Amino acid sequence: VADPVQQAWPRRQVRPLGADTLASVDAWWRAANYLSIGQIYLLDNPLLERPLERDDIKPRLLGHWGTTPGLNFIYAHLNRVIREREQSTIYIAGPGHGGPGMVANAYLDGTYSEIYSGIDQSTDGVRKLFRQFSFPGGIPSHAAPETPGSINEGGELGYSLSHAYGAAFDNPELLVATVIGDGEAETGPLATAWHSNKFLDPLHDGVVLPILHLNGYKIANPTVLARIPEDELLELMRGYGHTPHVVSGGFDGEDPALVHERMAQTLDMVLNEIAEIKRKAAEGDTTRPAWPMIILRTPKGWTCPAEIDGLPVENTWRAHQVPLANARDTEAHTRILEDWMRKYRPEELFDETGAPVELVTRLAPDGELRMSATPHANGGLLRRELALPDFRDYAVAVEEPGAVSGEATRTLGGWLADVIRDNPDNFRIFGPDETASNRLAPAVYEYSDKQWNAEVLPVDEHLARAGRIMEVLSEHQCQGWLEGYLLTGRHGLMNSYEAFIHIVDSMFNQHAKWLKVSRDIPWRRPVSSLNYLLSSHVWRQDHNGFSHQDPGFIDHVVNKKADVVRVYLPPDANTLLSTYDHCLRSVDYVNVVVAGKQPSPQWLDMDAAIAHCTRGLGIWEWAGTEVAGEQPDVVLGCAGDVPTLEVLAAASILRRELPGLKVRVVNVVDLMRLQDVREHPHGLSDREFDTIFTSDRPIVFAYHGYPWLIHRLTYRRAAHANLHVRGYKEEGTTTTPFDMVMLNDLDRYHLVIDVIDRVPGLASSQAGLRQRMQDARLHARQYTREHGEDLPEVTDWSWAGSQGHSQESATERTDDTGSDNV
Amino acid sequence: VADPVQQAWPRRQVRPLGADTLASVDAWWRAANYLSIGQIYLLDNPLLERPLERDDIKPRLLGHWGTTPGLNFIYAHLNRVIREREQSTIYIAGPGHGGPGMVANAYLDGTYSEIYSGIDQSTDGVRKLFRQFSFPGGIPSHAAPETPGSINEGGELGYSLSHAYGAAFDNPELLVATVIGDGEAETGPLATAWHSNKFLDPLHDGVVLPILHLNGYKIANPTVLARIPEDELLELMRGYGHTPHVVSGGFDGEDPALVHERMAQTLDMVLNEIAEIKRKAAEGDTTRPAWPMIILRTPKGWTCPAEIDGLPVENTWRAHQVPLANARDTEAHTRILEDWMRKYRPEELFDETGAPVELVTRLAPDGELRMSATPHANGGLLRRELALPDFRDYAVAVEEPGAVSGEATRTLGGWLADVIRDNPDNFRIFGPDETASNRLAPAVYEYSDKQWNAEVLPVDEHLARAGRIMEVLSEHQCQGWLEGYLLTGRHGLMNSYEAFIHIVDSMFNQHAKWLKVSRDIPWRRPVSSLNYLLSSHVWRQDHNGFSHQDPGFIDHVVNKKADVVRVYLPPDANTLLSTYDHCLRSVDYVNVVVAGKQPSPQWLDMDAAIAHCTRGLGIWEWAGTEVAGEQPDVVLGCAGDVPTLEVLAAASILRRELPGLKVRVVNVVDLMRLQDVREHPHGLSDREFDTIFTSDRPIVFAYHGYPWLIHRLTYRRAAHANLHVRGYKEEGTTTTPFDMVMLNDLDRYHLVIDVIDRVPGLASSQAGLRQRMQDARLHARQYTREHGEDLPEVTDWSWAGSQGHSQESATERTDDTGSDNV
Ligand SMILES: Cc1ncc(C[n+]2csc(CCOP(=O)(O)OP(=O)(O)O)c2C)c(N)n1
Ligand SMILES: Cc1ncc(C[n+]2csc(CCOP(=O)(O)OP(=O)(O)O)c2C)c(N)n1
Ligand SMILES: [Mg+2]
Ligand SMILES: [Mg+2]
Repeated sequence: VADPVQQAWPRRQVRPLGADTLASVDAWWRAANYLSIGQIYLLDNPLLERPLERDDIKPRLLGHWGTTPGLNFIYAHLNRVIREREQSTIYIAGPGHGGPGMVANAYLDGTYSEIYSGIDQSTDGVRKLFRQFSFPGGIPSHAAPETPGSINEGGELGYSLSHAYGAAFDNPELLVATVIGDGEAETGPLATAWHSNKFLDPLHDGVVLPILHLNGYKIANPTVLARIPEDELLELMRGYGHTPHVVSGGFDGEDPALVHERMAQTLDMVLNEIAEIKRKAAEGDTTRPAWPMIILRTPKGWTCPAEIDGLPVENTWRAHQVPLANARDTEAHTRILEDWMRKYRPEELFDETGAPVELVTRLAPDGELRMSATPHANGGLLRRELALPDFRDYAVAVEEPGAVSGEATRTLGGWLADVIRDNPDNFRIFGPDETASNRLAPAVYEYSDKQWNAEVLPVDEHLARAGRIMEVLSEHQCQGWLEGYLLTGRHGLMNSYEAFIHIVDSMFNQHAKWLKVSRDIPWRRPVSSLNYLLSSHVWRQDHNGFSHQDPGFIDHVVNKKADVVRVYLPPDANTLLSTYDHCLRSVDYVNVVVAGKQPSPQWLDMDAAIAHCTRGLGIWEWAGTEVAGEQPDVVLGCAGDVPTLEVLAAASILRRELPGLKVRVVNVVDLMRLQDVREHPHGLSDREFDTIFTSDRPIVFAYHGYPWLIHRLTYRRAAHANLHVRGYKEEGTTTTPFDMVMLNDLDRYHLVIDVIDRVPGLASSQAGLRQRMQDARLHARQYTREHGEDLPEVTDWSWAGSQGHSQESATERTDDTGSDNV
Repeated sequence: VADPVQQAWPRRQVRPLGADTLASVDAWWRAANYLSIGQIYLLDNPLLERPLERDDIKPRLLGHWGTTPGLNFIYAHLNRVIREREQSTIYIAGPGHGGPGMVANAYLDGTYSEIYSGIDQSTDGVRKLFRQFSFPGGIPSHAAPETPGSINEGGELGYSLSHAYGAAFDNPELLVATVIGDGEAETGPLATAWHSNKFLDPLHDGVVLPILHLNGYKIANPTVLARIPEDELLELMRGYGHTPHVVSGGFDGEDPALVHERMAQTLDMVLNEIAEIKRKAAEGDTTRPAWPMIILRTPKGWTCPAEIDGLPVENTWRAHQVPLANARDTEAHTRILEDWMRKYRPEELFDETGAPVELVTRLAPDGELRMSATPHANGGLLRRELALPDFRDYAVAVEEPGAVSGEATRTLGGWLADVIRDNPDNFRIFGPDETASNRLAPAVYEYSDKQWNAEVLPVDEHLARAGRIMEVLSEHQCQGWLEGYLLTGRHGLMNSYEAFIHIVDSMFNQHAKWLKVSRDIPWRRPVSSLNYLLSSHVWRQDHNGFSHQDPGFIDHVVNKKADVVRVYLPPDANTLLSTYDHCLRSVDYVNVVVAGKQPSPQWLDMDAAIAHCTRGLGIWEWAGTEVAGEQPDVVLGCAGDVPTLEVLAAASILRRELPGLKVRVVNVVDLMRLQDVREHPHGLSDREFDTIFTSDRPIVFAYHGYPWLIHRLTYRRAAHANLHVRGYKEEGTTTTPFDMVMLNDLDRYHLVIDVIDRVPGLASSQAGLRQRMQDARLHARQYTREHGEDLPEVTDWSWAGSQGHSQESATERTDDTGSDNV
């Protein structure tokens, strides 16, 4: 009987390549290099069937050569071992600006022609391949979504290794070959990603093989890791928990054949080491292995002209981009380009039809073993729908609005625990050590632990070699892992403090851009949405101060394409459940969900919650004092749990104090509903908007975040001139919850004042009430200064239903800090 | 004669502490611990002069104990060596949530009472000290601006080490003792910051002493570095280029006296090693030293109760925050707290007046040697104004608007070179390997090189052991270094690609918050503004594609307090010079300047540029076709170099095609001018705004970034209903510059269409012109698809002055990619 581990991770003898194999590996490398240069430079005469002329050359030379020969070299060598071992492999190009190389390899693989029918393996196909690169209407210069086999654009550097681990989780038979630029290695996200190996389970996860590409330079400078003594570098890699293997070569004109030999033997050795680790793990060994990694030291721009115009180019930073910046200005420059390209001997590599010859392709794997064709790099192909337990079964029972108190994220945690139970190998929760603080835990530990492969002590809880919950104190790592996991066809979410999610603003950008572009690429299948759960939000960061208060991620997100982004602010537990069920079913979005974790009143029973979430917003008739058939006098809008609470408290004051005032209360869950339907697919038409918010009544809107966002979403609405928004205006510190809302004029008393100031006639007639509200604010503030907590009137307030009174009895104090808000 | 290096960095014999010294170090530590716990828990009975009662305890317990005993331990030991060596030292607390500790130490130092007069060294002072902590109206829980001696809030973790290096640059006599949380060490920014030692000059810079605080846990999980074998950790530190020293202790009830001994000896050894390195450097040794660092392994929450309610607390994650989450609910809990506090023997530490006794304070340094009183931590005290060469001398000569072409950032580079020359020790330029790509270099290398302390090869250019230009491929590091440099009283700027500056969104947040709070703290003196220069912007990232296109940093920035943020979009070189001169003179702001690097027309001569920048915006009369005394028919607004070019091109088409149309052209440099003066100090009054933009004419506004930002800034203006904004709407790829503006409808032809569609009467009468504009777009697009470059009509376009014609002669092609746009 075949041992599945042995089959997935076979061992092979390490021996010299042999002339034939060597010739093939080298031929692939030369062909890929040739095709890369062609993409950067040529419009025509792709296979140099005639002397190169000025007009064969592109007028604008765009792209990056420097990293490319290294990427191609690695690809060629991986091809051999993949074929020999039938090793399922995905290739991650950290320096994604080596796009020409990734395209060239996919073209040689045949994948490119299968996907892009215009570009076949013929001279004309090569011409088209060259022309389209970095060309208007063509393809981008990076390892973009358009590039077969890519899940890492690599434009913004730093995420290759995190993406790689994300791809490896729950793919026990997958090899993730990851090329890390030595410049890229200087970024923070990459520098911490090395430690991902403490979060990988050799038994249930795949293998990440980091290949540190030490070509010595970044754009215009040497790199740190290339300029420390090799001993120091080896210590660093061992300190990261790896067993490093060095392959160095190609300098001072060294024959590439020699470097091929060294690389091939190293790769075989390394894969054998991996096979050995896999075997041991299968046998029950749970010690953390020192996974092998490769340090590949080669010249930047390897094989390009050594000098151009009297300056060294190969093996310097000058090779980074387009080594020969202008190949059309002089005949001499055109000749340099031609000589350079002919050095690869294209006539040996392509037949008379323009197709790559057998010498080039014979060592390459077939079908899905081709790295450019692996389904893992087009994760939608592999994606299985989640088995989602019925979220309605987890509902908080709400007999009357506001009658019970609950913690929204804790309730969600109960459901997520069962999501974990029912999806044991394709769903994970990621967080920067905040899953407990955000109160998803302990519930989510019910059927799974936190995955952890470093030392475990008896005192530890919920740590295990394999687990669905991933916690590392790096938002970058969480995001990168999750992205890699999703792009390879799985599901997950990231929970984080609202303020610190800005740490991944730029990573979100890149992912949103990836999704936007992917939508228009027919062969890219939809992937699961990237789901954020932001808690410990701006209003309830009780243990921390101003540094932990920032609701601006929403603002950041809505700048991206409307097709791709969704923002939800469920006001209580049942709406959070309904929202999250929706998010986990969706594809190709980024869903941002902001939810509270502190005990707070529950407004909607499950049926109402579902209806409310389906509409995305709605009038809460039970909260208002409208008269059927008449226009309201004022609309109180709210979005977010704390603003909702304050609006309802304000409504109850108005109900008591101004019983004749017709108040409409509108709650918004799906923020994009506020936008115009022409701007966002979730947007309301003007007619719908006017129906709900009126076109001419004052609207006092209490919003979770920066108030101007609501203006930006609604500035074209008829009622916009009457819209008055309260929100976070960057005032805060370590203080009580009610003091926080008062600091930002979002409190119930101030909302009543806003109503008085805006409803015609009230300003003069209700000066007394207005003054009482001001006094109430003062009193509330003074109380906190004396007692260090909010006054009972506020903390004990609860909605008393339609009796027309608010109830201020102490059912449950809601200002307990819960000692986990860290 | 005294040797200054020996004086600044003396050597001392390493020997046992001796009983007296030991007693003092321990007394400080106990006192600081006691005062930390008091802050977290007590309202009254501060020195436990009577039994602790329920009402002595705060109702809301907020703060973090876990990290605090370690921070205090280190502080106590540093005190001794600082006093003995008169060593100028600043203390950076990575885990800034150890705020109670930092406050306690400053209080014991006496600094706290000097600064906050209410809080003197008496029982009543201690009471106030306790009460204010995390209390409404009091002080925040972190090492915030309110905390004497702090330059690192440490709320958002990860920046301590970068800040530390920033503080060390150009402070050759300063020791920067930097405590790094083992959780913090998992963040990306911290993980890469270790490599800062390759950018430090032992001769001209200070010394960073990293103290990795291995207390084993973060919030709810163990930490990676605490759970790898010590060998591996030592290799990691050596791999980072350090000489590690381990101090481990306090476990299983070990007597702290023993740990004190080990720590003291290690610290003396380490400081002697540092002195030796300094001496060698002074003697001309330029090898990169393996700077010592300390690994301090102690229990999290050291000295708190071992168990509470049957669960282990000390030396577990449960000690992270408030170990005894409720000290008022039961008598037993109150007793636990009392016993815990009495363990420190407060009666030995404070005299009958409540002041710390001599035993506690005698080993502490005096005056500015106190870490809480070092002027380096209140950098404004040390700040010297920059000597700024007259920027007018660097002007591009502009005889006629648009007559010459120039590269704005290259021009700025010339001036910055001389700023460097004239300020050789307090001005630096930071960038993620983009200073050349952004074209500040090579000019800025004229009087200084790039500082680099790793290996240098003959092929390298402009690298030196000491230099003013700092380049590392980490936006986090650049930002962190710059922040540390500014907060210790120096000047600088960071240049970056516009898109990738989002990488530091959250760091910007924290710095902006720091500045906002500092403004209200009388003893904090103003520091130099944090200046960004964003180039290679959204419209001209020619070599890269969609991933490099994002103008949203501006949107992010304007969410912060108006007092603190400024945004400038100079349209050409002279306006950039004038803007930057202003930025480098300013204090306490974050200045965001977005500027082009590609050749483009120069509009204003220096006098006009100064006037324009002083106003912040202005009507370009020469560009419009207004008739004196009459209202314009349409206003063309623009902000940003590319939008300005397109608006002027549109204006010239309108001038030719619709000579009767009265067009006003308004250019905006200072974006905040658009806002209401009640919202931003730079804002225009409504009257001023209406004068410039009219209150009722159509405004077509071409904006550099996301168009909705302009709406958000102007939604209250009378003309807002007539305002039509074009900008980047997230459409892009690797294509030509003009194709980019067309993709986003910001091109000249589309602007003309917008005018036709919006000026009453034109829609019907100018259908022909409208159609020609559409055809021109189509033609332009097709041209790019065929030729791979923009059509000559566009690239060769130049403003032809008041003759009423645009000139389409090839003076200079402006679409050269310059081969540095990487
Ligand atoms: C986060 C980030 N900062 C800056 C850049 C600009 N940039 C593009 S390529 C490059 C150098 C990359 O060097 P390396 O990773 O060594 O790649 P290679 O040498 O293989 O080209 C830089 C700094 C970027 N792409 N991403
Ligand atoms: C970037 C960031 N992510 C998450 C948090 C939330 N957080 C606060 S404290 C903490 C643990 C810190 O652990 P460590 O650095 O070891 O500090 P210590 O153990 O000394 O308290 C975390 C994750 C944070 N403050 N910053
Ligand atoms: Mg490199
Ligand atoms: Mg710790």
